[in-house]
Amino acid sequence: MSFRRAARLVCGFAGGSAVLVFAAVVADKHGYLRERFRLRETPTALHAAWLAANGWDYNWDKRDPSSTVNGKRKERAGDSGSPDTENNKPKATRHIFLIRHSQYNLNGNGDKERVLTPLGREQAELTGQRLAVLGLKYDLLIHSSMTRATETANILSKYLPEVELVSCDMLREGAPIEPVPPVGHWKPEAVYHEDGARIEAAFRRYIHRADAKQKEDSYEIIVCHANVIRYFVCRALQFPPEGWLRMGLNNGSITWLTIRPSGRVALRALGDSGFMPPDKLTQT
Amino acid sequence: MSFRRAARLVCGFAGGSAVLVFAAVVADKHGYLRERFRLRETPTALHAAWLAANGWDYNWDKRDPSSTVNGKRKERAGDSGSPDTENNKPKATRHIFLIRHSQYNLNGNGDKERVLTPLGREQAELTGQRLAVLGLKYDLLIHSSMTRATETANILSKYLPEVELVSCDMLREGAPIEPVPPVGHWKPEAVYHEDGARIEAAFRRYIHRADAKQKEDSYEIIVCHANVIRYFVCRALQFPPEGWLRMGLNNGSITWLTIRPSGRVALRALGDSGFMPPDKLTQT
Repeated sequence: MSFRRAARLVCGFAGGSAVLVFAAVVADKHGYLRERFRLRETPTALHAAWLAANGWDYNWDKRDPSSTVNGKRKERAGDSGSPDTENNKPKATRHIFLIRHSQYNLNGNGDKERVLTPLGREQAELTGQRLAVLGLKYDLLIHSSMTRATETANILSKYLPEVELVSCDMLREGAPIEPVPPVGHWKPEAVYHEDGARIEAAFRRYIHRADAKQKEDSYEIIVCHANVIRYFVCRALQFPPEGWLRMGLNNGSITWLTIRPSGRVALRALGDSGFMPPDKLTQT
Repeated sequence: MSFRRAARLVCGFAGGSAVLVFAAVVADKHGYLRERFRLRETPTALHAAWLAANGWDYNWDKRDPSSTVNGKRKERAGDSGSPDTENNKPKATRHIFLIRHSQYNLNGNGDKERVLTPLGREQAELTGQRLAVLGLKYDLLIHSSMTRATETANILSKYLPEVELVSCDMLREGAPIEPVPPVGHWKPEAVYHEDGARIEAAFRRYIHRADAKQKEDSYEIIVCHANVIRYFVCRALQFPPEGWLRMGLNNGSITWLTIRPSGRVALRALGDSGFMPPDKLTQT
């Protein structure tokens, strides 16, 4: 929705007689907000909303210790000096490696027949080798229960024999949210309604800062799907999740998220597949 | 800035007596907006503003043909059927490979002494080899005029001898915009003031859809710096540019942006460095 259209709709609902009672609360230092919104006048409350929406929520995963002491939410984020808060403070960093399944037979009749192609099996071998040579102390290998993700995870597992393998239905492929900009061939609303809630639930289960009792940094691998990974990246970075389709991921690629004890998140790589020879790269 | 604080400021400026005349224009289908803003009530105009701000501006590079016919801006985006518009339509895709310079001597006294380390030279060789084996018809190799970027580009150039090499001052490292969330050791406002305008100018020069007269897809390499690349990625994807520090890039890594004739943008990879053995990876 364009800003103009939104503004028109807003005014329409207010009967066209809305008085702009909100004053400017922020300076548009670099002028790009004004340009983006094609506004010539003083910044308005809509700018403030834009900035507010584009800030950083430190309690995005509801694990900010200052907000959870004694089971009560503290009113002021700065009030974090109590012993309870100190004990609840996470100390470890979580590293999460999101792996897109490798190439599969798109023509299969249903999930069970959509097995990896021979190239897909080769890709998974290369991804497994890369993960292994990175030499990290992986804690867990979680995978979507779909056939292509399960097969990919089983191949990775050969290279990481000590790492526990866990299947999860919540990580199956789906349509997380209607993309912006839209695409022509996209899904009916009911699909987003159901898939969106499930993929958001998967995000909340797997993507969060470490618990206070976690002593050492952790390294987890999650083998799943392009839409799920792209949605996770947008949500983790607090970018608009509608933007997930602005990214692309090669099969077998590695996307690396780091979550600090403070709740800060960093994307270390998106769709890294440089460990594959160019003739093995696919996007299907 | 939290939503609450923004709302308080807004109301403060309006004397605390602001009447909310705006009605809801959007349904918060998934409930995460409401949760993010900790709102219990019906979605408001601020939600509408949030959604508007998080939409997609098709004319982000001011090259949407329907907006530039006869030198005049058309009022309606849908009005694009005229022959003039057809002639002005881009047909080619631009692929832009953003390369971060490789490791350099951080202790050098000024830019000239901040030359690549022996490992940095090795990294650049690996990046050059990777770009070469990708086998694309590269059109141009542009680099920041800083020593570490120039040296990296010269090494890449050995592997791409046919590709013209161009130096550019606008691509030098700097502080593009105050990051959100903030970091403690960050720069005074004057630095953002000057660097921000320059890096934004570099973005506008290099990151845009193809001209209508470009017949074939193009492949350009830009060797520059972590801050510049991360800012370009946020701006190109229309994500809040304040979020640039939520990403990290290895030295010598490849970030691949694709810009379609329609102005759609895709990030194909961010910080791909899988072509380097793990013991050659650095982030300095």
